[in-house]
Amino acid sequence: MFAETLRKVIDNVDGGIGGVIMGLDGIPVETYMRQKERLDINTIGMEFSFILAQVRKAADSLAVGTCEEMSVKAERLVLVVRMLDPRYFLAVALQPEGNFGKARYLMRLAAPRLVEQL
Amino acid sequence: MFAETLRKVIDNVDGGIGGVIMGLDGIPVETYMRQKERLDINTIGMEFSFILAQVRKAADSLAVGTCEEMSVKAERLVLVVRMLDPRYFLAVALQPEGNFGKARYLMRLAAPRLVEQL
Repeated sequence: MFAETLRKVIDNVDGGIGGVIMGLDGIPVETYMRQKERLDINTIGMEFSFILAQVRKAADSLAVGTCEEMSVKAERLVLVVRMLDPRYFLAVALQPEGNFGKARYLMRLAAPRLVEQL
Repeated sequence: MFAETLRKVIDNVDGGIGGVIMGLDGIPVETYMRQKERLDINTIGMEFSFILAQVRKAADSLAVGTCEEMSVKAERLVLVVRMLDPRYFLAVALQPEGNFGKARYLMRLAAPRLVEQL
């Protein structure tokens, strides 16, 4: 079911490359790659699991509540991350010209279904 | 001139709290707070200067080009960051219900003017 939800998000976003549900410890639960020749979403997720843990610490220390979403735009990649619970996140990689807004929207819609199963 | 450009960005975004131009070493160049009673933008910027350095390292190691933008949404704060050059960034803090899209747009427009003066 994780795989099916991931696939629906990635395939319905222009420029969607792949997605992963991962623990903050960098261990993937489920992965989906639409464009297999491109960057590995597990490697991307692992790099950002560390950063996400730092963002959560910063949010704590600033007392602004829990971190809900994070996104990074690099020259050749856009990464959108949504926290599912305190331990797991959903990360979606897009091409730089991909539809960032739709990715965020579909991730928000998918989150409750994913959280139910974690 | 930095202050004037910062002010124009923050004041023209619904929910804009404040903005800072800062080095990746956490040292601010210019700061503007619209809502003085709220969180200090320098403290926010300093917390995220460290994270931004980590994001740049991750982008390097993934070979996805330089990091251009980053955003974080927490329960009580949205932070939008735009790299101005390899050493300096512009960070804008918004209320959670603030206009994230307009903030990104105005920051993109303002960047060349700020870069010229760095």
